[in-house]
Amino acid sequence: MHTIGAELTRIEPGTVEIELPFDPKLTQQHGLLHAGVISAALDAAGTYAAYSVIDPDASLLTIEFKVNLLSPGRGDRFLFRGEVTKPGTTIIVSDGRAYAIRPDGPAKLIASMTGTMMVVRGREGIEG
Amino acid sequence: MHTIGAELTRIEPGTVEIELPFDPKLTQQHGLLHAGVISAALDAAGTYAAYSVIDPDASLLTIEFKVNLLSPGRGDRFLFRGEVTKPGTTIIVSDGRAYAIRPDGPAKLIASMTGTMMVVRGREGIEG
Amino acid sequence: MHTIGAELTRIEPGTVEIELPFDPKLTQQHGLLHAGVISAALDAAGTYAAYSVIDPDASLLTIEFKVNLLSPGRGDRFLFRGEVTKPGTTIIVSDGRAYAIRPDGPAKLIASMTGTMMVVRGREGIEG
Amino acid sequence: MHTIGAELTRIEPGTVEIELPFDPKLTQQHGLLHAGVISAALDAAGTYAAYSVIDPDASLLTIEFKVNLLSPGRGDRFLFRGEVTKPGTTIIVSDGRAYAIRPDGPAKLIASMTGTMMVVRGREGIEG
Repeated sequence: MHTIGAELTRIEPGTVEIELPFDPKLTQQHGLLHAGVISAALDAAGTYAAYSVIDPDASLLTIEFKVNLLSPGRGDRFLFRGEVTKPGTTIIVSDGRAYAIRPDGPAKLIASMTGTMMVVRGREGIEG
Repeated sequence: MHTIGAELTRIEPGTVEIELPFDPKLTQQHGLLHAGVISAALDAAGTYAAYSVIDPDASLLTIEFKVNLLSPGRGDRFLFRGEVTKPGTTIIVSDGRAYAIRPDGPAKLIASMTGTMMVVRGREGIEG
Repeated sequence: MHTIGAELTRIEPGTVEIELPFDPKLTQQHGLLHAGVISAALDAAGTYAAYSVIDPDASLLTIEFKVNLLSPGRGDRFLFRGEVTKPGTTIIVSDGRAYAIRPDGPAKLIASMTGTMMVVRGREGIEG
Repeated sequence: MHTIGAELTRIEPGTVEIELPFDPKLTQQHGLLHAGVISAALDAAGTYAAYSVIDPDASLLTIEFKVNLLSPGRGDRFLFRGEVTKPGTTIIVSDGRAYAIRPDGPAKLIASMTGTMMVVRGREGIEG
């Protein structure tokens, strides 16, 4: 996230926001924010939100995630909000919303995400 | 895809394969291929597969996609296969599979994907 | 929905609620609301919500939907809320939430859904 | 499944098939197999496939599933195949495919599914 200029602008238990300024390097051929960037930032926001509700010694493995791309990613800034929908000791589900922010109008919802994570302790998560 | 060292190694109507050599820059803290890279490469393979079955003057918008991360991304090379599950004039569905390839054993399935795309013509797709 | 005792209890543009009283016929072996019933009711709520924002002469085809089962379906009544996340002339996305309602406590979120639909006119939708 | 006339016609480790004869009671207004029936039968096939690879004393909880409806459900019989994509001690992923079978032509793919399940032992699964 850091390498693409993203900033963590809000961290509360269960809710995280990431902001990203427009950067031509992150766009596809039509000047719109690339779907891969939208997905990665939504995934990060959802994962960070889940980290905010687990023990400091636990970690998370993403089991699956789904992204719906709703509108073209056209804006000056982009906001990615991740929220924990279901905390749990084994399985955590987060939802995410991505918004394009323009100076001349309201924020526009451009994508949504649902992600399912497993809480792991120690090395178990990286064995598989 | 090109910037991460990926190569298109197979293109047939409805099937596309992308290969990616191991590169420490694409891994997370445990030396495993990053989930974001897996997702982006699967999405690319599924989208290219869909492009292989549409008219040359049409283009595709991804409506949604879902990725299941199945096993840690540990390997020397990675193969991402995208296949068109359902061709169509309006909606195309592709499935993708990601494999880790190791010198000492069989390829291991590390992720699967389903993506839904809309066929667009002219500028309609980038209006929203 | 009618045959399982469900009732449409709220209809507003973009939001629909369905309520369902507990019925032993709709449970699995542990007395919990069956996942198939939860999914079908969420799908119905999301689809009705989408119908509330389209022209009366148009109809909808479900392209795909995803359900996360979050908690056991234990309650006296169940509420299924469908909301349009993204209206559109071609593609509509709805999200749904299912709650178990108990006399002795707050409603509990038991499932979430995202569904993608295509707006169709005339017979086009049933041709395939 | 039994109440809708479905039959388990193939059980192998990791693969299960369910067949369903056409029945007007299972159709929607256009005489097509209802999406809810397709989803429920796919879910059942995927879950049974997963049961075929776990210990007899373990059971499964569905965490999430996603269905893509690909073509109208028009046929004399329907076949639902569930296959384990990823076995595991904690998480199992199954994929499913639904086909419409007609006397005068090849089977037609009408829907696909991916489902994620958690392996549970004892009562842990029904506590939540």
